[in-house]
Formats: sequence, C-alpha cells, structure tokens
Amino acid sequence: MTEKTLHELNSCSKVDFVAALANIFEYSPWIAEKAADNRPFAGVKQLFAAMRKVVEEAAAGQRLALIKAHPDLADKTQRGDLLTAESNAEQNSAGLDRLSEAEYAAFDRVNNAYRAKFGFPYIVCVRRHTKDSILADFEKRLPNDPAAEVTASVAEICKIAALRTDLLVNGPDRLQVHGRLSTHVLDTHSGRPAAGISVELVELSKLSVSRVIARTLTNHDGRTDVPLIAGRPVPIGGYELTFKVGSYFAERGVPMSDPPFLDEIPLRFSVYEPEGHLHVPLLVTPWSYGTYRGS
Amino acid sequence: MTEKTLHELNSCSKVDFVAALANIFEYSPWIAEKAADNRPFAGVKQLFAAMRKVVEEAAAGQRLALIKAHPDLADKTQRGDLLTAESNAEQNSAGLDRLSEAEYAAFDRVNNAYRAKFGFPYIVCVRRHTKDSILADFEKRLPNDPAAEVTASVAEICKIAALRTDLLVNGPDRLQVHGRLSTHVLDTHSGRPAAGISVELVELSKLSVSRVIARTLTNHDGRTDVPLIAGRPVPIGGYELTFKVGSYFAERGVPMSDPPFLDEIPLRFSVYEPEGHLHVPLLVTPWSYGTYRGS
Amino acid sequence: MTEKTLHELNSCSKVDFVAALANIFEYSPWIAEKAADNRPFAGVKQLFAAMRKVVEEAAAGQRLALIKAHPDLADKTQRGDLLTAESNAEQNSAGLDRLSEAEYAAFDRVNNAYRAKFGFPYIVCVRRHTKDSILADFEKRLPNDPAAEVTASVAEICKIAALRTDLLVNGPDRLQVHGRLSTHVLDTHSGRPAAGISVELVELSKLSVSRVIARTLTNHDGRTDVPLIAGRPVPIGGYELTFKVGSYFAERGVPMSDPPFLDEIPLRFSVYEPEGHLHVPLLVTPWSYGTYRGS
Amino acid sequence: MTEKTLHELNSCSKVDFVAALANIFEYSPWIAEKAADNRPFAGVKQLFAAMRKVVEEAAAGQRLALIKAHPDLADKTQRGDLLTAESNAEQNSAGLDRLSEAEYAAFDRVNNAYRAKFGFPYIVCVRRHTKDSILADFEKRLPNDPAAEVTASVAEICKIAALRTDLLVNGPDRLQVHGRLSTHVLDTHSGRPAAGISVELVELSKLSVSRVIARTLTNHDGRTDVPLIAGRPVPIGGYELTFKVGSYFAERGVPMSDPPFLDEIPLRFSVYEPEGHLHVPLLVTPWSYGTYRGS
Repeated sequence: MTEKTLHELNSCSKVDFVAALANIFEYSPWIAEKAADNRPFAGVKQLFAAMRKVVEEAAAGQRLALIKAHPDLADKTQRGDLLTAESNAEQNSAGLDRLSEAEYAAFDRVNNAYRAKFGFPYIVCVRRHTKDSILADFEKRLPNDPAAEVTASVAEICKIAALRTDLLVNGPDRLQVHGRLSTHVLDTHSGRPAAGISVELVELSKLSVSRVIARTLTNHDGRTDVPLIAGRPVPIGGYELTFKVGSYFAERGVPMSDPPFLDEIPLRFSVYEPEGHLHVPLLVTPWSYGTYRGS
Repeated sequence: MTEKTLHELNSCSKVDFVAALANIFEYSPWIAEKAADNRPFAGVKQLFAAMRKVVEEAAAGQRLALIKAHPDLADKTQRGDLLTAESNAEQNSAGLDRLSEAEYAAFDRVNNAYRAKFGFPYIVCVRRHTKDSILADFEKRLPNDPAAEVTASVAEICKIAALRTDLLVNGPDRLQVHGRLSTHVLDTHSGRPAAGISVELVELSKLSVSRVIARTLTNHDGRTDVPLIAGRPVPIGGYELTFKVGSYFAERGVPMSDPPFLDEIPLRFSVYEPEGHLHVPLLVTPWSYGTYRGS
Repeated sequence: MTEKTLHELNSCSKVDFVAALANIFEYSPWIAEKAADNRPFAGVKQLFAAMRKVVEEAAAGQRLALIKAHPDLADKTQRGDLLTAESNAEQNSAGLDRLSEAEYAAFDRVNNAYRAKFGFPYIVCVRRHTKDSILADFEKRLPNDPAAEVTASVAEICKIAALRTDLLVNGPDRLQVHGRLSTHVLDTHSGRPAAGISVELVELSKLSVSRVIARTLTNHDGRTDVPLIAGRPVPIGGYELTFKVGSYFAERGVPMSDPPFLDEIPLRFSVYEPEGHLHVPLLVTPWSYGTYRGS
Repeated sequence: MTEKTLHELNSCSKVDFVAALANIFEYSPWIAEKAADNRPFAGVKQLFAAMRKVVEEAAAGQRLALIKAHPDLADKTQRGDLLTAESNAEQNSAGLDRLSEAEYAAFDRVNNAYRAKFGFPYIVCVRRHTKDSILADFEKRLPNDPAAEVTASVAEICKIAALRTDLLVNGPDRLQVHGRLSTHVLDTHSGRPAAGISVELVELSKLSVSRVIARTLTNHDGRTDVPLIAGRPVPIGGYELTFKVGSYFAERGVPMSDPPFLDEIPLRFSVYEPEGHLHVPLLVTPWSYGTYRGS
C-alpha cells in the first residue's frame, strides 16, 4: 500500500477507496467498502472509527471469517506469497523472521495448541510485543473460552488495523498508536546533567539471545538527542539500559576507587504500555545511584 | 599445617616452632627460625610482625630467594607435589584450578612475559583477587622496573603470609585480614525492611563464565542471616547482586503493572578493598530503587 | 519511691512489698496488695503481668475508682502536694509544667470538656506524648462512648504503670517500654560516612514554641555516639532534624555554588510508635539528598 | 519610561532616542547619546552591547560620575522625587521598601561604611538579590580595594541596565536576563506524577521575617502550571519549598502511620544563578523522599 492523504481518500471513487484500504483489515475489503458510505471523514480518527464500527456491527459469522483470514504467527510455510506485505513487515518487526530453531518450536507449539482448541489462528498485534511477551500473552489466553477469544482476537485485529491506518493515511490528525522510551542522566556529584555518557539499550529475551536496540551518548542536557524508542509502539517486554559511568567520572578527574565501585550500571525494567511514555532516568555519583518510573 | 595455639608456639622447642611455621613463607623456614628468638609473643600480631621484620631486614639476595621459592600462578605442570598445600588451596580459592583453556592461555602469557622480564615468578596474594583482577594487576605491574617489582612481590608475600598465619595460629587477637560484603533491602513502599527477598550474588568474569557465589533470602530485618562474604578477604573484582522484587511485591498484593516495571533488579559493582566492609543496600518500591556504598 | 531489686520485692514482708509498689497505680495500693499473693516472681514481666491481671479482673466500680484517683492533666491547682511524685515527674517530661497561658487554656478546655462528658479525668500516658499529640489524642477520644473511654483509660493507666515499674524495679529482665530515635549520615559524594556533621533535633509544636531536644555531631561512622532519644519512650509528635551539610562539604574543599545550593537540611517527620526504633538517615551530596524510614 | 519597539528606536530622531533611553543608566543620558551613532541595531543585544561599550571606553572620571549618580540602597531620605522611577521599582522588588527598623539599621550601616571607605555609594543589581544576599554581597565587597570596587560597581550597573533595557525595548531578540525556578513531584509509591499536591515557596530571611512567594497545586503532570518564579531573575538567597504530602497520600487511601511519618516536607535550598534554570523536584513515598538539583 502506498501512503494516501485523507483528502484523496475522501474524494476518490469508492472503488479506489476500497482498493487503497483493502488490507487495513487482513484480506477483508468488505470493511472498507461499508465504511466508504460515511465519507467524507473529518480526520483519520473518524475514518478509523467508521471501519471499527463496521467490524463491531458485523454478524458473528463475518467476524469469525475476519479472524480466520489471518495467518499463523511465525509460520514458515506461509511466508512469502501467502501473507500480505503488511503481515510480513509486522512479524519481522518483532523478530519473528529471525527465530532460532528453539523459538520456531515454541511458536509452533503455541499456534497448534491454540488452533486445536479454538479452530482459528492465534492473533496478536505483534508490533506491540517482543517474542517473550507474545508467548506470555499466549499462555494467558489459551485457558479462555471461545467467546472471550473471539472478543480478544477482534480487539487485536483493531490494534493491527489502527497501526496500518496510521502508516497509510496522511491526515490532519494522528491516531494514538505510538509510544516513547526515554532516559536522562543527572550527575548528582557535580550537580549537572551528565553529558557524553555511553548508553546501550538491550531488548532481553528469555527464549534466545538478547539484542541491542540502541547505542548512543547523552548530550549536554544529559538526554539522548532522540528518544531511545519513538514513532512506534514500544514493545511490551523486558529491557536493560546500561550506562558507562566509570569512564565518565574518570574523564572528569573525580577521585574513585580502583577498580571503580560503579563502572557500568544496568537498569532492568519492563515496558507494559506500548502507547505510553516511559521515562527511565538515572541519578548517579561514583558511589550511589537511583532510578524511577519518570514522566 | 595443623592449627596451633599461640601458647603452644611460645612454649614448644625451637625445632617444633620452625616446623610449625615453615610454610608461612613458601619454602622459607629460615624466617621462622630467626623470628623464634623473639619468643614469647604477646599476641598473633607480634608474632607476625617479628616474621615480617626478618623479611624486611634480610639481605637483597635472601629476599630474591624468597621470591623465587614461589610457584608460577596456575601452572599445570607444578600442580601436585611441587606446590605447598597452602599454595594449592590459595590458587583454588580464586578458581585457578578451574581455568578454561582460554584462561590458561591468558595466565601462561602473563607468567611467561613477567618471568622473561624480571627473572622471577609473578606473585600476588590470590585470596584477595578474582581471576579478572589478577590479570588487571599483572597489566599494571608488568611495566614496572625490577626494584619496584621486588618491593611489590615482598608486599604480596607478606599478605599471603598474614593469611596463612591467621589460619594456622589461634591466639588472643586476630590479624586484620578479613573483609565483609553485606546487603540490606528496605521496602520504601511500605516503610519496613523487605523480608523474604531472593538474593543472588554473582562474581563477574570478563575472561570466562561468571559464577554464583551466594543464593539466599532476606530475613525479617531485610538483611541476610550471614553476610554474603565474610571470614576471608573479599576478592577484588566485579560482582552483580540480583534481587527478585517483582515476586516480593506481588505476594504482598501491591498493585503493579503487567509485566511488572521492576522484576529482577541487578546491582553491578566492584570490590576494591578486600579487608574492608562493603555494604550494598537496596531501597525499593515497585516503581523506583536506589543503592549506595553504605557502611 | 526508691529503686528495689526484684529479689528484695520477692523476699520482703507483704507490708513492705505493698509500700514499695503503692504508687505504681496512682493512689491504689490495693493492686499491689492482691498481686503480692503471687510472689515470688521469676522476672519483672511476671510481676507486672500479675498487677495488670488484678486490674483486669477488678469489679467495674473498682476500675472506675482507679480512674478517678488520677489527677487532671496540667492542672495548676493540683500541683505540689496533691499529685504523687511520679505524676509530677511524668507531666514535666512532656513539658506540662512549662505551659504558656494559651496552652494552659487549651488543656483546661480539654480537661473540662472531658470531665463534663464522662465524669472522670482524661488520662493519658504522657511520657509517650508531646503536648501536640496529647491534644490530638483528646480530640480523637472525646467523641467515644463511656464504656470505650473506661477501656481506653485503663489501657493508658497500664502503660503508665509499666513505665513506673520499669523505673522502680531492677530485675533480670526489662519491660519493653523504651524506644529509640537514631540517624546516620552517608556522604554519597565521597562514598563514606559523613563525620563531624552538626545535627540538631527539635520537637515541633503547633501550640507554642518548638524546643531543641538534642544537639550533637556525627562520629567517624556518620552516626551519633548515643541515639538522639533512647532509654525512654519516644514521644509521639512532630520533629525536625537539621543537618549542617554546607560547612561539612566546604571544610572538605568540595566545589560548591555560592551560596551553597544545600546548607542546612531539615528533615521533618512524626514519631508514631513510642516503643519502636525509628531510624532516619540522610544520604547527601552538595546537590542532592534523600531520607527514608530506616531500621 | 514606556515600552518602545526596536524599530522605533532605530528610526526616531537622536533626541527622541536619547530621551527614551536616558535612564537605562541612572541619570546618565550621555551613554545613550554616544551609542546613538551606531544605529540601526539588528537586535536588542546589539543595542545593549553598544551602550555597554560606551561605558567600558569612557574615561575613568566619567565612570566614577556614573557610579556616583546612583542612590544609596534603602535610603529613606532619597525616596520619592530623588530616585528614578526605575530605581524605586527595583528596590521595591527586593523588599527594600518594606524594611523593619532592624533592617534599616543594617542597611544604613552598610551604606555608611561603604561610602566612608570608597567615597561612592554601594551599588548592586537588586533585582538579582534578596535582602540577605545583598548584605552578604556587601560583606564580601567591603574589604576590596577601590579599583576592584569601581570594576564591580560598573559590572552591577551593566546588569541593572540590561534588565532596564529588557523591560523597555521590544525587539526581535531578548537579553538573557531572566531565570526560572521550577519543581516536579513524582509519587514513587504509585509510579506516577503526584497531582494536587499543595506547594508553598517561602523566601527565607535571616534578618527578619520570611515571606511566602508562591502558593500553588501540582497539576496532572506533577508540575505547577507556571514555574514558581519566571520572567525575571531568580533572586540569590535562601528558599524553602513545602509539599503537603500527608493529605495527598491520605486522600488516595494509602496505608499510613498515625500521625503520618511524613506530612509536610520542607526542601531548603539556595539560588545562586539568578539567570539560570533551577529545577528542584521531589520523589516521594509515605516513607521516603529525595530531591536533587535538576535540569
């Protein structure tokens, strides 16, 4: 899909409108088709609300068909032609295209157990998740009854659709689908922001290897020039931020022990609101530090 | 060597005195022999001071012979009969009997480079060190000139001897050769010590795998029933203490995010004074924590 | 009353026993008289428990008589001969002998309102209170019904009696009637206890002037040589601890702003458990500080 | 003086220019007269730099005349007609129009001692000061030699002039003559900004009574809707911020002691850079709190 302006979507033919939005909901152009009758839309929020209303008011059979139109997660056999381009990109964002054999096995077990119980694929908005949190979500949902899972699946489908809409439609307003992860280092030994501190962000994985998400330096204000994560949901999961404070203080001639009591400080925390702003600051001296969920 | 009381050492024959203390200084009974003339000793401190004085007043050739009487660190070929029992036990304490091939290679390089430059073995009081800090110490000492290294080697030999004396001689006083590492968890969410928190202490290694030193629970006062390390020098090196705070707060019904913002908190720090008391407390809520070099 | 050993009380005549303990309960020797039959007592706790049991098992009329035997708080007209020496000393401990006119008026109002409603004097264990907390306690109790106030009064009388017993009887054990207030200053700028810091403790008063309870210096361990309050209950009420950190850092040549960002740091807190140990530490750099309810 | 745009000052007659800027430097229109030759000015910074250059290049006698054109601080006899309107307003900003008798006496002593030694009045940019810091500044400057005081006086005169220029001239740019004092309350018990906390800012005075500068509430982000001080220099001196955290936690049903361990928390600090941004946050639970010089 190529980006469209809201104006274009408001003024084009119905056929073009449906074509443009066909895959906002996986292989389900009938949703855009019904929503088209409400044109013109004042904003992207109204456009998305109209499509969501079509889904909510659809007959039970239609909703089930929508669910069944979705692929299995991390299914090698469906890669390539069988997935929409959107699905492929989304699964890659969570690293589902880079699974180890052990991870494939775990996801396969999940998918099969879920499909065996409910008769439809396990659906989750993967851009809001890490591999670990997808498996945790699965564990939580598998004991549900079918009605609860239909509701949960539709809710996930709407989150996927909101993110696709945000990517596709350029309008005067934005859907609230992005979050932010930021940090700030205060040097409370000298009473000023800590500039030039090396910062590394790692996404932790219980299943396999953790991976570095960002490497940067703090600027003159003790912050990073750009947030550690922004412009997208911050995936639910475990993270570790590491700050190289030993070399920072050494370069400033601060008296320290040998080896320094504090050298690389890890802050380990979890993200739980992908659309929220999570601020994780560090207050530090060569002999103490602290952190908190900031705002 | 079997433990002796100071009284026994003060009242036995000179031959028995020398036999008992023969290996306080590696393969160098002449030191005990000279020190014997100063009997009786009022305390273990006086006994040790007398032996140290013999070393300090020895001729340069004798001091060099003392140095050369020591084994190479981590030398496979000297294991067994060639080392004193004391040397064997000390090297094992730092894990030098469990070196990986890569580590053996590193230690071999160190020993050979040092011996090639100075003509005598690299000596360090290994009970005060981790494998990492031994290699760091070597890097610091290799550029020295020979006179400085004779002085440094004698100083290390005296530290080794002090620890051996402390193990061997039971007297009314103690040498100050032990350190302590302790922790304390304060739950500042409820304003009381955090009891029942799972704590793990790991000795970090850059060379090879880190190893768990202690696993314990905090007691009703938020402390561990025994210090994490005590009754011996705390080896110089990097450590990581991990506290399972997520399950602690969950068990108390404290409202938390899902997943919890803080679950396992790692504190990473270095020990730099093996004979000192290093206290590393944790102040924690589900949303914040801090630590400092306590006392 | 002069101090007695438990042994003396166990072995003397009944008359002497009653004479010695006559005023443990204000003007009510009948309590000691009945308790005497349980001699000998293994400890002070058993002695006190025996007297408390006499009170608890007394007829309603006797309990009321016990209550009525107590003086009004801070009643000028009862000063001197009409109060037991114990009552006088206790009231003085809370500063009730140094009331301003406004305070007298407040206490008079309290006493009169209480006596008018219940027909007996308002009783509180004043050694566990400040003037402010007595008035707060009164406000809380005045709306009670008479039965609740009889119970509350007897409970207070027992607390008074426990403190008098602790003062009078020297035995192998102690009643748990004392608390402790302590502090500790950690200099997290240099990573060591802060020695030589000037500390002042003030008991706050909403009614009249606050008064200095203690002025001292921290020792080499960052603590005070003796606790700020110990060997007695810590009176419920508001306190302010002030630490002169500006001069401490200036004397150590630490770079600071002019005037220093932090100079005198006040920590304002309330005591709520007179028999507990309240530890109020300070972690401080020239640019930051923190405190917490420690243990 | 009434506000002028830079454009007006660039395009009006020289007579009008001088008239408009006559009192930027107290009773010294010759400065504006010379600076006028450099018109037009690209910005307010260039205009001010031109006037400052005139002062710096003036002959010694002229600089002394400029100094002598200034009034004594807090001189009752010069109030009214003898002071420029600007001087009057500035002295009032520091509370110099509300001096107690004791304060008048202190300022009189200062002025007379200074004038007696140097032969010209003590000059300080009072908008950057509190009464306390003016007296501290005087104590620091009185021991100086005359040359140093001429330099210091001219520097203060230029600070006064910069503030007057900033008030008078409306241009495309601003002089950096304003500072900011702000706060932020993080509730680390619940992991969110503390909204609705009552905050009071008091300017402390050693000489006389302290006065309340601001009373406000924190908003949903834990900040105050407007900074505590902004749009002017933040006067050098001592301050106390008080936060009513007891009622905040009580209203949220948080379990607390009775009375609450923490109720009103005072943070006492000094401002030392009137043109800087001083951020003084509070991290708080019912059992702990901390603050730091933020940014």
